[in-house]
Amino acid sequence: QKTYHIAVIAGDGIGKEIVPQAQAVLEKVTRGKADIRYEDFDLGAERYLRDGAVLPDEDLDRLKQQDAILLGAIGDPRIKAGILERGLLLKMRFELDQYVNLRPSKLYKGVVSPLANPGDIDFVVVREGTEGLYAGAGGSIRRGTPQEVATEVSINTAYGAERVIRYAFQLAMKRRRRLTLVHKKNVLTNAGDMWQRLVDQVGQEYPDVEREYLHIDASTIFLVTEPSRFDVIVTDNLFGDILTDEAGAVVGGVGYSASGCINASGTYPSMFEPIHGSAPDIAGKGIANPTAAILSAGMLLDHLSFEDEAASIERAVEDDIERSGSTQRSTEQIGRDILSRL
Amino acid sequence: QKTYHIAVIAGDGIGKEIVPQAQAVLEKVTRGKADIRYEDFDLGAERYLRDGAVLPDEDLDRLKQQDAILLGAIGDPRIKAGILERGLLLKMRFELDQYVNLRPSKLYKGVVSPLANPGDIDFVVVREGTEGLYAGAGGSIRRGTPQEVATEVSINTAYGAERVIRYAFQLAMKRRRRLTLVHKKNVLTNAGDMWQRLVDQVGQEYPDVEREYLHIDASTIFLVTEPSRFDVIVTDNLFGDILTDEAGAVVGGVGYSASGCINASGTYPSMFEPIHGSAPDIAGKGIANPTAAILSAGMLLDHLSFEDEAASIERAVEDDIERSGSTQRSTEQIGRDILSRL
Ligand SMILES: CC(C)[C@H](C(=O)O)[C@@H](O)C(=O)O
Ligand SMILES: CC(C)[C@H](C(=O)O)[C@@H](O)C(=O)O
Repeated sequence: QKTYHIAVIAGDGIGKEIVPQAQAVLEKVTRGKADIRYEDFDLGAERYLRDGAVLPDEDLDRLKQQDAILLGAIGDPRIKAGILERGLLLKMRFELDQYVNLRPSKLYKGVVSPLANPGDIDFVVVREGTEGLYAGAGGSIRRGTPQEVATEVSINTAYGAERVIRYAFQLAMKRRRRLTLVHKKNVLTNAGDMWQRLVDQVGQEYPDVEREYLHIDASTIFLVTEPSRFDVIVTDNLFGDILTDEAGAVVGGVGYSASGCINASGTYPSMFEPIHGSAPDIAGKGIANPTAAILSAGMLLDHLSFEDEAASIERAVEDDIERSGSTQRSTEQIGRDILSRL
Repeated sequence: QKTYHIAVIAGDGIGKEIVPQAQAVLEKVTRGKADIRYEDFDLGAERYLRDGAVLPDEDLDRLKQQDAILLGAIGDPRIKAGILERGLLLKMRFELDQYVNLRPSKLYKGVVSPLANPGDIDFVVVREGTEGLYAGAGGSIRRGTPQEVATEVSINTAYGAERVIRYAFQLAMKRRRRLTLVHKKNVLTNAGDMWQRLVDQVGQEYPDVEREYLHIDASTIFLVTEPSRFDVIVTDNLFGDILTDEAGAVVGGVGYSASGCINASGTYPSMFEPIHGSAPDIAGKGIANPTAAILSAGMLLDHLSFEDEAASIERAVEDDIERSGSTQRSTEQIGRDILSRL
């Protein structure tokens, strides 16, 4: 039995409630197959409020030594927007070079979509994770005066875009062989043109993959009117953020949406997290849906090459949703129900 | 009878088909009340392909002398993305200082929304129109090499944000007194923080307007799950672009979505246009829906203080949609049907 070191960052709000359910599932499916050692990381709002630390170097160094990271949610209304997001969540994605932000959207049987005729929805957004407007470039002058100017700079590199585009084509080859580039190249002409050229260029190596281009605004329409048209979407960091939340809504709520922040070159550990946030409005009530966290644990196992175990988690979740998707259940009940189907 | 000079830019694709219908409606409702003089501007793809001109200074100067501009659509697949958009459409918005991009979304009776339970949808997006990522700042180095770097710079000023925020509060006072700021202040901390501070500051003058803040990603969810929560949304140029297309889909298609690019200080003419594009796939077939163009003509009249005539256009459109919203009709038939209800 091989030993795996998994960092656990339960984080804030409902993160603390859903992560234990995901761990229980991980435990069960790997029993006898892998020796998983968890290390809890005290990161998030409480740590920050206690000692002002967001992501100290020593924690980052310890994180780098893990095989993977399981994350709950980060964010707390008591803390000014951006401090934990930029200083912790995005810092991990950037420092650990998690350049593929992988976000599947699937409408499970038994889940009620807000769409009248959703059709078969099953696509994956491959969101770039380490550049674009998330680079944190930009600043302000004359802050707080009528002459204030605030900038945000989107930094895009061929290096950064090409590697995530290549990943998306490889993924499309394993799926329905259709790749949609989403950008806004009629306005963001510098970055958009580069993305389009790289998609065309890498696409030469994947002649079996059908390519299309959509503006971000048009994509938000198709997600509502014709979501089944999508197979693999590749896009930049901000557009990916926006599209995947809309996609989560369309497949019945971000409570079912898992994600992987993947360092596909393996230089640092990858991180797996639900795409929803810390949901302060329902935190502490024991009613948060742990499904996205459990599916994220499945993606984590898949990443560690436990493909069969990962598939069994997804099947158990599908069964559970099909049986009792829309009934009100507590966090623990959903966890137990999924466990019992494994 | 006062004389009004209206510039008509039919533009590309279906623009040419829908604008005459909007003009016919304008004609009918202002007969005996105003003397409207149209001046056609030959701008768009054909002009560019013929003589390379996108928006020559002399055209811009003539545009500045009009009382308002009626625009069809701009964009042609034969022309590289960005040339007409940046050089013509956005250049007009910027040069004519059309800082309020006003985009109402209403679910008309008789229109089928793609949502299973849309509820009452009736909100307005006040999109900033002259700055942000649309400023055209940014560039590339080492273009076409593996070392390419492409940037896009979002430029935001207190001056620019404050005036559109103030407009949004005034609009909210005339409506249901609820204002939602949409941004991404947890990541775009410089611009987002400025927008939030200005909303809070201007909001002091409008204590009766309830304020909320939503991240752009969360807003795309609410547009699908609970669109009736919105009254007035104020946001930046790019987020407004994205949200209004999704909103258009939710209210049954961008074929019903009008917009005004408004210079609210009156220094230059305002421009009125459907939010949809030139739709090259259906251009020339006579099947484009002119409703958004007709509603845009209504917004134009409202802007010129013909409030009653504007209201009569909206009523005629509502009647028409309620009676025959989902039946297949030609562009001309829809135009005739709406005319007959005036
Ligand atoms: C919390 C926030 C910084 C984050 C993002 O914008 O990436 C979240 O919305 C997500 O999608 O994971
Ligand atoms: C054509 C394009 C430049 C434009 C925009 O992005 O503003 C359009 O999408 C719109 O919404 O009016």
